[in-house]
Amino acid sequence: MSFLRKVTIEITIILKSIASICFFSTHKKHNSHYFENSLMKKIILLSLALSMMINLNAQSDNAAFYIKDIYSTALSKSQAYNWLHSLTTNIGGRISGSPEAMAAVEYTRQMLDTLGLDKVYLQECYVPHWERGDKEVARIVNSRTMGTVDLSVLALGNSTGTGDNGLTANVIEVQSLDEVQELGREKIEGKIVFYNRPADVTQTNTFEAYGGAVDQRVHGPAIAANFGAVGAIVRSVTPSLDDVPHTGVTVNSRYNEGVKPIPSIGISTLDAELLSRILKQEEEVSVYFRTTCRMMGEKKSYNVVGEITGSEFPDEIILVGGHLDSWDVGQGAHDDGAGVVHAMATLQIMKEMNYQPKRTIRCVLFMNEENGQQGSKAYAEASNKNNEFHLAAIESDRGGFTPKGFGCEGDPLTFPDRFAKFKNYETLLSPYGLDFSKGGSGADISRLKDQKGLLIGFIPDSQRYFDFHHTDEDNIDAVNKRELDLGVAAIFSLVYLIDQYGL
Amino acid sequence: MSFLRKVTIEITIILKSIASICFFSTHKKHNSHYFENSLMKKIILLSLALSMMINLNAQSDNAAFYIKDIYSTALSKSQAYNWLHSLTTNIGGRISGSPEAMAAVEYTRQMLDTLGLDKVYLQECYVPHWERGDKEVARIVNSRTMGTVDLSVLALGNSTGTGDNGLTANVIEVQSLDEVQELGREKIEGKIVFYNRPADVTQTNTFEAYGGAVDQRVHGPAIAANFGAVGAIVRSVTPSLDDVPHTGVTVNSRYNEGVKPIPSIGISTLDAELLSRILKQEEEVSVYFRTTCRMMGEKKSYNVVGEITGSEFPDEIILVGGHLDSWDVGQGAHDDGAGVVHAMATLQIMKEMNYQPKRTIRCVLFMNEENGQQGSKAYAEASNKNNEFHLAAIESDRGGFTPKGFGCEGDPLTFPDRFAKFKNYETLLSPYGLDFSKGGSGADISRLKDQKGLLIGFIPDSQRYFDFHHTDEDNIDAVNKRELDLGVAAIFSLVYLIDQYGL
Repeated sequence: MSFLRKVTIEITIILKSIASICFFSTHKKHNSHYFENSLMKKIILLSLALSMMINLNAQSDNAAFYIKDIYSTALSKSQAYNWLHSLTTNIGGRISGSPEAMAAVEYTRQMLDTLGLDKVYLQECYVPHWERGDKEVARIVNSRTMGTVDLSVLALGNSTGTGDNGLTANVIEVQSLDEVQELGREKIEGKIVFYNRPADVTQTNTFEAYGGAVDQRVHGPAIAANFGAVGAIVRSVTPSLDDVPHTGVTVNSRYNEGVKPIPSIGISTLDAELLSRILKQEEEVSVYFRTTCRMMGEKKSYNVVGEITGSEFPDEIILVGGHLDSWDVGQGAHDDGAGVVHAMATLQIMKEMNYQPKRTIRCVLFMNEENGQQGSKAYAEASNKNNEFHLAAIESDRGGFTPKGFGCEGDPLTFPDRFAKFKNYETLLSPYGLDFSKGGSGADISRLKDQKGLLIGFIPDSQRYFDFHHTDEDNIDAVNKRELDLGVAAIFSLVYLIDQYGL
Repeated sequence: MSFLRKVTIEITIILKSIASICFFSTHKKHNSHYFENSLMKKIILLSLALSMMINLNAQSDNAAFYIKDIYSTALSKSQAYNWLHSLTTNIGGRISGSPEAMAAVEYTRQMLDTLGLDKVYLQECYVPHWERGDKEVARIVNSRTMGTVDLSVLALGNSTGTGDNGLTANVIEVQSLDEVQELGREKIEGKIVFYNRPADVTQTNTFEAYGGAVDQRVHGPAIAANFGAVGAIVRSVTPSLDDVPHTGVTVNSRYNEGVKPIPSIGISTLDAELLSRILKQEEEVSVYFRTTCRMMGEKKSYNVVGEITGSEFPDEIILVGGHLDSWDVGQGAHDDGAGVVHAMATLQIMKEMNYQPKRTIRCVLFMNEENGQQGSKAYAEASNKNNEFHLAAIESDRGGFTPKGFGCEGDPLTFPDRFAKFKNYETLLSPYGLDFSKGGSGADISRLKDQKGLLIGFIPDSQRYFDFHHTDEDNIDAVNKRELDLGVAAIFSLVYLIDQYGL
């Protein structure tokens, strides 16, 4: 029993005694009837208020005990790591449209089928299928001081290939999209534009560092092409200095009409530093690169959905989700295998603890987050069409590291009230190192904003994420079982609080 | 400028205006002279108090800016990872008394010498030298169902060997020291006692799990020997299930007089589970093991010390430290190479930022924490003899993971006041995910308690520590550069606050 609860119980007992005494008094002394009656009323009201406080504290005590149980159960019985092991080592990288992506759909459906949920189903969507083709080749071809230098690169997702003969051109280094526009066609035309603004290593949150540099990868190739560039090299978006190249999507939305997409590669941060040093020392530096990646057209694919129907408020949905697709390099362990098994294991631990939710708890494994988000579009469209209401949607897409908290956003009209209520739950989770902040939730759930529920992003420790993100290193060895299981515990604890006490 | 500061400045301006008005009023109206004079005094006093608040807030603003600089500098310029790389890969495991331990003394002294400190010196101590000898062999020899089964084991530190012919005996499993005493000599004599109580996986803090099981390793062999056991096998003290055996010290203090120390090994948790399963199925299970470890007698060794003398209060010492020795298996990367470079890099970043401390900042790299603590004994003795005063001592010996905060203890008389003052600094560090708690500080600094300063343990995230602790896996690959550098930033930030604003 909490201290506060003990105190309120003591006070209530005392006040109830006083109330009884007053009641008997009023029957004896009529001359001060009004005063005592009024006092008694006040005391009775106060007693009632305190009784309610006791109930609230009892609730809070119960919740604290239950959350402790959730943590114990998740740390000892979660299937998250076993499932992630299979997903990463038996299936591996699973880009949308690939056979691996289909295998992941089938595997996760089968695993959800083992849990005795009320519903497990696939939800159709149509996804782009991009293929990397041959292993990329890239080198500096004419360095006066260093001769030929091989570079560690990966084609950027959704980018076009160079063709079999590759591409050779002089390189011009820039630090930003704006700099390309300032340099103009005269300086850019015919060149390979090399975006080399680093992710800021001094940011304590690596997602801030990522957010401050990723525009170069997303829009850089298109902007460069608009000024006549023939190719783009983008410094890998990570604060780490290493020889691991990062892929990731580049988009076509900012190509001017009539401008053809140009071949684009990500380069390891160490090779970016090297290329930059050579460019500072020599007048003309030429790079050759060859990529045979290409878009293969649309494929049919699926989101995987499993749910436990709510016993009291079945129409209020609490979604937990991650994305099933990953890049083709590596095993997609942290991005976003971790999110997938966080969502699945939340339902597993619920069943393990015989928890019957009041609201509908739905696990959604989205397809195609990485290079199109067709899965989340299909999900939101179907949900809106069916007049569904997501009271809360929780997305895990920042890796399987030690949990730090939840960031949350929502419809501007309803958000302040909901966030205030949400924030009340923080005291119950802060003993587990979790805090609640305003901020971005997640790409896949953001389309549910119109339903005016709360959109919540799970936030784990960020320090190691961009060592693995979109690389060949994102494999099961990079995931720690305890850290992963703590994510399951954190997410279920939050689902439990929202399910029990609403928003 | 902080909001609070703005508000206090506004209020002060208003109050000063009122004070002026009152001052002029008292010169006009003599009939209410006393009242107004008294009011004016109060207002002037209030204004002064508010001015002081403004200064405090200005200090707090300055401190916040400086701490931000510390983080930026540590994340971009810390030598911690480079030093740790050398210490672990060029020198490696460095048990007290070994040539590697001497090499570590020499290397860290040389690196401290490069920093332009006011003093760098060695402090003599005499340490036990234990040698592991041949690679350990252990197997179940007579399982009816499984035949011969090899076991993953490591001799426990400071334990005695079996001799060349090894040891074979029947095994009895127990869950605690108490159980051995309950079973008594009849059941224990002639047997190998197998301590198999797991570290509790459901603890969210792995140090709690460790603390709840480590008595079996520290005292188990002696207790078993007192009842006639001929050997001891101890389940590795980690909440993880894997095939990695953990070493660690076992001590002789609880052997009864005349009882000879018995050979003792740590066994991997998976093999502990296996052995336990077989013991449940079969009546008599015999294990053979062979260890040739032995104590080699005392060796001369050193603590390594480097310091910057304080400009205002040179006699108030703020110590930052870790321990230089490690176990002989693995590279001692997290335990405690990380602590060593945390301490060294705190001084490096100080110099990098041209920070001149008011108090003396002393980096101490203690020898022999793992199996004798002779370094910290020598340090405390010399310090007490010289009437030194450690205002604060900060120890890092929980690995190089993402910082979570500081735990702290001290002399019972002075602790409440100092902790209250200390706790004031928390608001400046909580934006970096750090919180301050009461609790254990560290083995090497605990001997400074009599000086009545604050003893502070650096607390990083604990989830992965016992995957590596005292094993062959504790190598540089297990350390993340950013996480390590954040430790340097956290420790320097705390040193800065204590140095600037006292305790």
